[in-house]
Amino acid sequence: MGRTVGELLSTYAEILAELRERGVVRSANAPAGDYAEWLCSRALGGALVDNFSVKSHDLVLADGQRVQVRTRVTSEPSKAGQLPTSPYRSWDFDLAAFVLLRDYDYAVRRAVLVPVDVVRAKSSYRSHVNGSVVMMRGALLDHVDAEDITDRLRAAASEG
Amino acid sequence: MGRTVGELLSTYAEILAELRERGVVRSANAPAGDYAEWLCSRALGGALVDNFSVKSHDLVLADGQRVQVRTRVTSEPSKAGQLPTSPYRSWDFDLAAFVLLRDYDYAVRRAVLVPVDVVRAKSSYRSHVNGSVVMMRGALLDHVDAEDITDRLRAAASEG
Repeated sequence: MGRTVGELLSTYAEILAELRERGVVRSANAPAGDYAEWLCSRALGGALVDNFSVKSHDLVLADGQRVQVRTRVTSEPSKAGQLPTSPYRSWDFDLAAFVLLRDYDYAVRRAVLVPVDVVRAKSSYRSHVNGSVVMMRGALLDHVDAEDITDRLRAAASEG
Repeated sequence: MGRTVGELLSTYAEILAELRERGVVRSANAPAGDYAEWLCSRALGGALVDNFSVKSHDLVLADGQRVQVRTRVTSEPSKAGQLPTSPYRSWDFDLAAFVLLRDYDYAVRRAVLVPVDVVRAKSSYRSHVNGSVVMMRGALLDHVDAEDITDRLRAAASEG
């Protein structure tokens, strides 16, 4: 890409605007989180909730279960600092979706659905951020109660 | 842009990789923060510090002053939710740089340097996030002790 830094950032902003236009990105944040929510809503059905009025979950499934989505962008192999989720400050949801995106093209590397009790048991409270953090690695992702939804999210990504 | 959502995200990831390659983006976070730090280092001189080992400031100027950079991406007019900084959990720096970027092309809308004591006086502690937040609006940006650096950052952006 033989462009200036300013031009690269401008194209970056244009892509964000287009993603917002299409309803994929709903916030002013980096798109990874919104994209993961959008993929989950396409793959699992259900309705995305308003992030401003509802903080405790992102999605309500057809059967009424509330899903909190967390995503991380990771290299291969993952670095340790890439794996902790942002802090949980509420456990008022039923299922946690974890979505790992590949750094160089945001392809879905891995996605699982985990019951809230398992997430809570695997998480650690960090007073510094006043919340609980869980690592997106084997003990969580390969848990016997985790449901792999990687293929369903990949299918949703290729339909978009 | 007649591209699929997956293609847009892939181009997005490519741009991030290119910005990382050029040293503009140094973290896995959204580029706005890193870009603002890069602009400040170009505009003010001085050396960027390692974000992993040093949390309290981002830049050390030639005269030894430590600068903490905060940025927000805003629409015109700004929405209230766009103006609070991320939380300060330390006041161990000398100057705060505030950089407002325009949402649709990340152009520098406004940038100022403010002494830490002014920032501290204008900020509010929020127990929820265990840190202090300040609004990037007139009382701060137009403060008598604030130094406007908008033109210097714009010049740095166009050189890149």
